[in-house]
Formats: sequence, structure tokens, C-alpha cells
Amino acid sequence: MSPTLNDIVSSLQRSGTFINSLIVALTIGGQQLFSSYTFRCPCQVGKNFYYGSAFLVFPALILLIAGYALRSQMWTITTEYCCSCASSQRTVTPLERKLACLRFFSITGRALIAPLTWLAVTLLRGTYYECAASEFASVDQYPVFNNVTAGKREEMLAGFPCCKSAPSDVTQVRDEVVLLHRYQSQMLGWILITLTFIAVLISRCLMRCCSPLTSLQHCYWTNHLQNERELFEEAAKQHSRLLISQRIEKLFGFAPGSEDVKHVRIPSCQDW
Amino acid sequence: MSPTLNDIVSSLQRSGTFINSLIVALTIGGQQLFSSYTFRCPCQVGKNFYYGSAFLVFPALILLIAGYALRSQMWTITTEYCCSCASSQRTVTPLERKLACLRFFSITGRALIAPLTWLAVTLLRGTYYECAASEFASVDQYPVFNNVTAGKREEMLAGFPCCKSAPSDVTQVRDEVVLLHRYQSQMLGWILITLTFIAVLISRCLMRCCSPLTSLQHCYWTNHLQNERELFEEAAKQHSRLLISQRIEKLFGFAPGSEDVKHVRIPSCQDW
Amino acid sequence: MSPTLNDIVSSLQRSGTFINSLIVALTIGGQQLFSSYTFRCPCQVGKNFYYGSAFLVFPALILLIAGYALRSQMWTITTEYCCSCASSQRTVTPLERKLACLRFFSITGRALIAPLTWLAVTLLRGTYYECAASEFASVDQYPVFNNVTAGKREEMLAGFPCCKSAPSDVTQVRDEVVLLHRYQSQMLGWILITLTFIAVLISRCLMRCCSPLTSLQHCYWTNHLQNERELFEEAAKQHSRLLISQRIEKLFGFAPGSEDVKHVRIPSCQDW
Repeated sequence: MSPTLNDIVSSLQRSGTFINSLIVALTIGGQQLFSSYTFRCPCQVGKNFYYGSAFLVFPALILLIAGYALRSQMWTITTEYCCSCASSQRTVTPLERKLACLRFFSITGRALIAPLTWLAVTLLRGTYYECAASEFASVDQYPVFNNVTAGKREEMLAGFPCCKSAPSDVTQVRDEVVLLHRYQSQMLGWILITLTFIAVLISRCLMRCCSPLTSLQHCYWTNHLQNERELFEEAAKQHSRLLISQRIEKLFGFAPGSEDVKHVRIPSCQDW
Repeated sequence: MSPTLNDIVSSLQRSGTFINSLIVALTIGGQQLFSSYTFRCPCQVGKNFYYGSAFLVFPALILLIAGYALRSQMWTITTEYCCSCASSQRTVTPLERKLACLRFFSITGRALIAPLTWLAVTLLRGTYYECAASEFASVDQYPVFNNVTAGKREEMLAGFPCCKSAPSDVTQVRDEVVLLHRYQSQMLGWILITLTFIAVLISRCLMRCCSPLTSLQHCYWTNHLQNERELFEEAAKQHSRLLISQRIEKLFGFAPGSEDVKHVRIPSCQDW
Repeated sequence: MSPTLNDIVSSLQRSGTFINSLIVALTIGGQQLFSSYTFRCPCQVGKNFYYGSAFLVFPALILLIAGYALRSQMWTITTEYCCSCASSQRTVTPLERKLACLRFFSITGRALIAPLTWLAVTLLRGTYYECAASEFASVDQYPVFNNVTAGKREEMLAGFPCCKSAPSDVTQVRDEVVLLHRYQSQMLGWILITLTFIAVLISRCLMRCCSPLTSLQHCYWTNHLQNERELFEEAAKQHSRLLISQRIEKLFGFAPGSEDVKHVRIPSCQDW
């Protein structure tokens, strides 16, 4: 790789853009794969709305929960600041509290990426919205529906997303209603995406301004947290291996991995 | 691999997400492979329900049992805390008891992944539910079934999942009933998945809060358990090889694998 | 590669042309991929304009915001110069203020590349403009529209981008209107591209002229900023590792990575 490309990639990785793009790409791919072979609008009065909404909302909710649950940092914060049993042992300074809030917001930001991508992609494609909104289309201006009872009209409207065979004038109305719903769905999708990006810009601005750390301190702090975890894990591993070695030496008479073993101790039943 | 990707992978492995994703992927793949060439609804009165339910429930039960049986930690806990013969030799402190509970819950959590995935995938596909529920569809509103005896109607309903040839008005009813069952099945699937994720979030929260260990202690403890097993296995292997070597030296006059063998002893009949 | 080609490539990379070309190529590719399967003009009165405009403006806006949000330099400037809480701590010299403006303009320049590319490509293709402008076409000179009510005429005009079946004289008018819109769209596109390039030329000229730095100073300054970041990161890493090592030594009784460990300290519950 050329040095500039390398620079771009490494700077992307540092700012988290790489991981975020990966999440977005996986969500889009999953949506395409998933909806192509499970989504089938029921086309029955009173069910279209629930079915379409379920496919819009439930996966977004699941992705949100998964986004929170998978972040180990989340649990560190929970344990340290929310559980009263843990916090009673030591006092939390205001700076620590502020930093925890900062971390919580950044975790929330990343957890929101996948559900928002799901909603945006789904709305831009329009099939789920089409199914959910089919019953609520206003068709008063079309003369075809004039001498039709309310029940029959609802049934016809619910049947629109299924492309059932129908007389040609109803087909024409269906095409227009489908185009209208796609229009609404895509406009909603664009508004959602634009609002999200504006919110990201404003919140990043605010986070930087209200942060108790300057830019350099923030850089140091991020680095510090990572080093702390790495070094603690290294020391903890060494410590626990030493402890266990001593215990095993008492049991068997030699430390595991030692080369020149003079005498072997056969442990009694009480030792185990 | 780039360092950040490596970091992501190793952090995924540490938090167990990697293994969980593998279990989910294998279950989904297995379900697709399995149901595509073994599931064939019997389409006979009184058999559809049992057949469909069996394909829904039995594999989930088998996967649950397998999930418990394959975890070696499970058996360690069982031996140490449940068998009275073992526990009588030493006293169990309250902390140990709490930690065992913690481990048991985490094992249960992982054992539940595969059966819940099976149920969710199966319900989202809908074929098993379609077969199981076909006899209980309410078709009173359709005029086709007005002058048909109850027995004949049951037979027709049971035949719906098989796509038997039928008059066109019955075919239309069948299409609607099939869409209705798919709707019910998929809604059940979504509710199941969402409830599962909420339960995971709450239980992880509670486990962290009620855990007798802080975040760092938990990290140390997990590491410690793994080191203990590794070092014990290493030492036990070395110990047992040394013991056996000494015994064989007594029998044959030299240790197995030694290069310069001076004299060979021919064992007498008493030695064997 | 021949040395001259190598020189050209490396000089391109240094001047940022390489990254800019990458952004342009990605935007063009994304536009082609995206619009081919989501854009479907609603063809209804009062909706065409909003739909076409949304597809023209929203992605450009999103790309602009993303261009700003992804540049980490942007946030450094924001923190240092805009937030009152940070700037109150130290005084900002006029030279620093000028350099920050310089950096802000260069960031804005790069952030504008993607949205301008989107607008240019979209206008040169013409489909979005065709949809948005369809309602405002002036068709007074065509005799077909003489004995048609205003409402009906609007409806016909809105239906033009959808290629609905129509009498042959209307089809002829539609073809002429579509050609007219494509002409307007592409002319707008060319004017936009030309104006952009002229603006780039003038602004680069002005920036060099009004810059408080000579060409050599500018070269030194760019290099200086990069070195500053690199050296600071190196020192910060070393500092934080030392701090953490000391803290871990208090807890476990030895520093992580030390070779000869004499005694191990078992931490009490209070230490964690």
C-alpha cells in the first residue's frame, strides 16, 4: 500500500470510522439478504399494519439492544457507577462522573448506528412501509371506489401489496397508491438520514465543547484507558500463574514447566 | 490482518461473542439444510399438529441438552457442589457458592442460544407452524365451507399445507389461510427474538450488579480459572509421566526415551 | 514504475489530489449504484418537485456534513477556538487565528468535493431534475393542451417522467419536454462544474496571497503539525504506561513484564 493510503486507513481506524462503516455495510447486506426471502405481506385487513411495523421496528430494537449488550465498556460503567453496592466502597469524583457520561454517550452513538441504518435502508426500499400503510391510503378521489361498501374497500386496499389479479381500473389505482407510498417512505428515509447526520454533527460539537478535557487530554485519556487494560491483563496473568505454580508445587513437589525435577511427591487424598 | 481488525477479533473472542455467533450461524445453517429435505407435512387429520410441533420442539430440546452436556465446566460444578459425597470433605464458602451460581447462569445462557435460534429461525420461516396450525384455522367467514360436513372440512383444512389440486375458490381460501399462518408465525418469531434480547440485557445487568466481584476482579477471576486448568493439566501430565518412567525404569532397567542405555534388566515374573 | 511516473504519483499524493480523486470516484460510483434501484418518480401533482429535489439536495447535504464530521482536525479547531471554556484558559495570537482560518478553509474545500460531485453527476444524468421540473414545464405553445382544464393539464405534466401510455400527440409533446429538461439539467451541470473549478483556482490563489506564511513556511508548518502529533502520541504512551505500571506494582507486588519476581502480594478486597 502506498504511504498516503496507509495513512488514510490508519487514521480511519483510529477515529472509529472503519468499524462504523463495517457495521453499516453488514446491516445493509443483512437487510437485503433477510427481507428477500422472509417478507411476505399478509394482505388481510387489520394485519398489514402490524406485520409491516414489526419488520420495521423489531429488528431495529434488537440491533439497538445488541449494540448495547455487546460493548464490554458498557458493563464496566454499569458496574462502577450504577450499582449501589459497588459505588459505596469508594467515592466518585465529579470528573470521573463526567467522563463516564462521555463514554456512555459515545457507546450510545455506536449502538444507534445499526438500528438507524436498518430503518433508513428499509424506508428507502419502501416494501415494508408499503405493506404497513396500505390500509390507510385515501382513495376518495378515485371514482372506482364510489359504489363499494367500506368493508369491501378496506379489503381491496389491504390486497394492494400482493399484486392480486384485478380489473384494469383498480390496477391503475393500485399503481398510483404504490407510487405514493414509495414516495412517502423514501421521503421519510431521507429526512431520517439527514436528521441523523445533523444530530451527529451537533452532538460531536457539543461533546467536544462540554467535555472537561481538551483535545490533547482526550487523546491521552483514550490511550491511557487502553494501556491500563493491556497492562492490567498482562500483570494479572503473570500474578495468577505464579500463585497457581506455588500451589501446584505444594501438591506435586515441582513447579510446572521446570526442567530438572529431582524428586516427585505423590499427593495424599487430603491434598486434593 | 491490520492491527485494528486483530483487536476487534480478539476482543470479540474474549467476550464470547465470537463463539456465540458461531453457534447461531451453525444452527441457522443446520436448520436450512435439515428442513429442506426432511420436512414433509403429513396433511392428515390429527397428525399435522403433532408433526409440526415435533419439528419445532424436539430439536430445540435436543440442542438445549447438548448445550449443557458439552460444557465441561458444568460437570465440574455438578461434582463440586451437588454431589454430597464430594462436598462432605471440605466446606464451601458463601463466595464460592455465589461464584458457582454465576458460572451456572452463564453456562445456561450459552446453552440457550442454540435452541432459541432454532425456534426463532423456524418461526420466521413459518413452514413448521403452518403445518402444525393448519387444522385449527377458522374458515367460518368463507362461503365455500357452508355446505360441507365437519369431517370433510377438517380433511380439507389438513390438506392445505400440501398444495393439493383443488377448485379455484378453495385455492384462494388456502392462499389466505397460508398467509395468515405465516403472519402469525413470523410475529411470534419476532416477539420471541425481542423478548430474548431484552432478557439478555436485563440478566447481564443484574448479574453484574449482584456479582460479588468488581469488574477488575471478574476479569482476574476468568483469567485465573483458565490458567489454573492449563497449568494443572501441564503439571499433571509431567507428574504422571515421571512416575511412570520411574516405575518402568525399575522394571526394564532404563527410562523410556533415554539415549545411552548401559545395561538392560530382564524382568522376572514377579515384577509384572 | 519508471522514476518519472513515481515522481508524479508521489507529488500527487503530497498535494492531496490522490485523496480528492478517490472521493470523486467513490461518489460517482455510489450515485450510479444507488439511483439505479431506488429512484422512482411518484408522477403525482405536487410530489414530483419534492421527490426530485430531495434526491438532489439531501444526499449532497449528508455528504457535506459527513465531510466535516469525519475530519478530526475540524474538532481540534472547534475545541481550541470556538468553545469559550477552553479559550478562556489561554490567549490566542492573531497568527494562530489566521492559521486556524487557513486550516478551516482547506477542510471546507475537501468537505465540498463529495457534495459538488454528487450534484454535478446527478445534473449531467438528468433524471432527478427531469422529475423535479416536470410540473413546471410551459406547454402553452402546444395545441394539444388548449382545451384541457388546468387541473388535468397539471396531472398530465406530472405523469410525463413515468412513460404512461398516452395518445400519440401527447407522447410527442412529452418527448420534447423531456429533451428540454435534459438540456437544462446538463447545462446547469456544466455551469456548476466550471464555476467550481474557477472558484478553486481563485481561492487557492487568494489563500496563498493572503496567507501569513510564505511557501517554504507553509511546507514547514504542515510538516511541523504532523511531527507534533506523532511525538506527542509517543510521549503520552510512554507516560501512561509508566503511571499504570507503578499502580499495578502497588496492587500485585511486581511490575508487569519484570523477569525476576521475588515475592507475590495477594491483594486484599480493599485494594481493588
